[in-house]
Amino acid sequence: MDQSIITYLTENREKHLAELKDFLAIPSISSLPEHKEDVQKAANWVATALEQIGMENIKVHPTKGHPVVYGEWLKAEGKPTVLIYAHYDVQPVDPLHLWESPPFEADIRDEKLYARGASDDKGQGFMHVKALQAILETTGTLPINVKFLIEGEEEIGSPNLPAFVEENKELLSSDIIVISDTSMMERGKPTICYGLRGLCGVQIDVKGPKGDLHSGLYGGAVQNPIHALVEIVNSFHNKNGQITVEGFYDQVAELTPAEKEAYLALGIKDESFINQLGVTEMFGEDGYTTLERTWVRPTLEVNGIYGGFQGEGIKTVLPSEAHAKITCRLVPDQDPDTIVELLQAHIKAHTPSGVTVEVSLFDKGAPFVTPFDHPAIQAAGRAYEKVYNVPTSFTRGGGSIPIVATFDQILEKPVVLMGFGLPDENFHAPNEHFHLENFDKGMETLCHYWFELEDSL
Amino acid sequence: MDQSIITYLTENREKHLAELKDFLAIPSISSLPEHKEDVQKAANWVATALEQIGMENIKVHPTKGHPVVYGEWLKAEGKPTVLIYAHYDVQPVDPLHLWESPPFEADIRDEKLYARGASDDKGQGFMHVKALQAILETTGTLPINVKFLIEGEEEIGSPNLPAFVEENKELLSSDIIVISDTSMMERGKPTICYGLRGLCGVQIDVKGPKGDLHSGLYGGAVQNPIHALVEIVNSFHNKNGQITVEGFYDQVAELTPAEKEAYLALGIKDESFINQLGVTEMFGEDGYTTLERTWVRPTLEVNGIYGGFQGEGIKTVLPSEAHAKITCRLVPDQDPDTIVELLQAHIKAHTPSGVTVEVSLFDKGAPFVTPFDHPAIQAAGRAYEKVYNVPTSFTRGGGSIPIVATFDQILEKPVVLMGFGLPDENFHAPNEHFHLENFDKGMETLCHYWFELEDSL
Repeated sequence: MDQSIITYLTENREKHLAELKDFLAIPSISSLPEHKEDVQKAANWVATALEQIGMENIKVHPTKGHPVVYGEWLKAEGKPTVLIYAHYDVQPVDPLHLWESPPFEADIRDEKLYARGASDDKGQGFMHVKALQAILETTGTLPINVKFLIEGEEEIGSPNLPAFVEENKELLSSDIIVISDTSMMERGKPTICYGLRGLCGVQIDVKGPKGDLHSGLYGGAVQNPIHALVEIVNSFHNKNGQITVEGFYDQVAELTPAEKEAYLALGIKDESFINQLGVTEMFGEDGYTTLERTWVRPTLEVNGIYGGFQGEGIKTVLPSEAHAKITCRLVPDQDPDTIVELLQAHIKAHTPSGVTVEVSLFDKGAPFVTPFDHPAIQAAGRAYEKVYNVPTSFTRGGGSIPIVATFDQILEKPVVLMGFGLPDENFHAPNEHFHLENFDKGMETLCHYWFELEDSL
Repeated sequence: MDQSIITYLTENREKHLAELKDFLAIPSISSLPEHKEDVQKAANWVATALEQIGMENIKVHPTKGHPVVYGEWLKAEGKPTVLIYAHYDVQPVDPLHLWESPPFEADIRDEKLYARGASDDKGQGFMHVKALQAILETTGTLPINVKFLIEGEEEIGSPNLPAFVEENKELLSSDIIVISDTSMMERGKPTICYGLRGLCGVQIDVKGPKGDLHSGLYGGAVQNPIHALVEIVNSFHNKNGQITVEGFYDQVAELTPAEKEAYLALGIKDESFINQLGVTEMFGEDGYTTLERTWVRPTLEVNGIYGGFQGEGIKTVLPSEAHAKITCRLVPDQDPDTIVELLQAHIKAHTPSGVTVEVSLFDKGAPFVTPFDHPAIQAAGRAYEKVYNVPTSFTRGGGSIPIVATFDQILEKPVVLMGFGLPDENFHAPNEHFHLENFDKGMETLCHYWFELEDSL
């Protein structure tokens, strides 16, 4: 890659930061109806920015909610096409009094840019625009074809994106999808997350007597809905931390030896988790390490349980109802629909007599993994290494990013998560910020990546 | 018994009701500090009423809270002595707008006396005073010796009564204790409750990680406090409804064949419970009937459970804490202290690794039973039958009345519960009332009882 690209980025740094501050000044909070116009304004800002760097076929697509911005540059004939996803909407800012500088007046302190959206995700989206501009202005062309898809509803769960992607499959077709909306493991440690867990969940509502009963008058003679719920919930795991729902593990892909080795090489010890979380010990499925348990093994967790009296002291009630909220984190190749069916069958089989049980379903998301040795993943690793001068960590994530599964499933192309945030940058919280070190190095990395990709795919 | 006593009651009915209305007009709500003077006023009213019928040694004893009123008549040499307990305090009256007539302006509609305290317990206490007056004024003497103990803190759990009883054992010594503060099974069916269950309880607080965790990032690698709590709670019972806490049943007195037969003779069918409670079936300890399960078998019920997210939908949290509130109903000869120790040992033995558990204790109360065939119980049965002309039902209660256990344990004398309320008389609720049928028949029954007792003990 031509050194002049880096020089361009260095020379235009102040200009870029000023532009980003403009972008960050728009309070595009997607969850608040009173900011609807601001969200539209941010969409227009993005469209203009894409136009200014030479993207074409730019359109602000309306949806039932906030718009999706599209733009493309497809002049690299015979070269791979990359779909870049980002979002221009942000989280609310309350509690406002905890912010050290106003959330929509970006402020640089100690080489960190403070503003709502600085890291999640306006800052990271903006880097993509400027990295491509640097290559275009310096070399007059790009080593790859590019399509931008920048939405305005990520912070409210992207309710309209799946339909948009489904309806625009052709427009969005590409060889790979690149998303910069995640974090590096720690400062100076470039990280590519190549897999995420999926999600499905159920709520269990146990009903017993038609009203709360006096535990003295009826205790011992009526099935207590809490007892019944506890019996069901306790049946989900055995003492070894394994999930006992029949068939639950049937579709789970086993970890490859190469991946197992890569995780061990990260050198993460249980002691650091124990200290950080304040637990007496780590606990989970027998035969797996903590990283494996959170990255490549499925889970079933009770997120909430409630029934009866919760106040101070005692109320001798035998309650009418008891409830539990349960989610499973899923790994390839588990299918959320299948797992939900297994859960329902398990609950039915383990419901004791004397109560009725209703099961309702929560939103589902498929697990995702881009093969560890995929050329697009390996090329991203090399790009990072050129800038950060340390080996790239290849990780998977325990959480779920619904849009990733959306792309994976609808567009059926590898997704590459190249995140430049840091875990302590207060996403969704007061004083969100972005380390400018990663703003600079991140853009350099992206430039390298496009050249690495040129001949890799 | 001389018929003139009954005639006296009939002739003075209007006068008695007017006096009772005076008593009911005093808003002696023990739980509300602003009614402290009213409670004192009610105590003085009781003292005056006792004086007017010829009781002696009357004293309004101050306590740390509301006063205890004492009075006695001990001129029946060689005859049994009865301690009569009642309470002159009442429950609050909110929500006031649900009352059809003002709670402290007693109103008779459809032969029911509506007022707060009409049934619980001013009305029933007043009946004792007037029944004795009827005998005294008609015959000039009493067939028994009498001591009155009328307190003003029953509705707040009698916090100062145990100490008063302990300090005044000599003053309160008697052959039996009679309490009229319970209900008949149904209209026209006189009932003597000769046993009540005791109570003890624990709160289980499970602590895991120091803060709530993201179930995606840490799910599967940390012991979930809800899972741990559910494992503990589920260990308390087996599938047959039996309590599996080691030693739990060791002190339980077995039901005598006579009692078993008496309960069957009540002819109460599970169907009526099922309809009333809206359950699909009755459920409990194998080998016992519903009445046995609620009257003579101990229980362990979870009264409340809570941890994690309880709102609409889902929050993928792995919570830091989970809690359960548990009470046991105890039967003779279980000792609450022993049972609490067994519970603590059981919880300790069933706590899974990865969490810490704290157990805190709730108030305890001993179970009580006056032997079914005790002469004082049988005499009470005969007294009822003389007035109601149907066989008396001998029952036990599943609940706990702490003062009963207090008397049983400190004074060590048989307690006879002669209740004249009905289950639908809205104790503690708006439109509390008292069926005047039982006001009239109840006083007659009490008069008969004192004569039945004269030669029974």
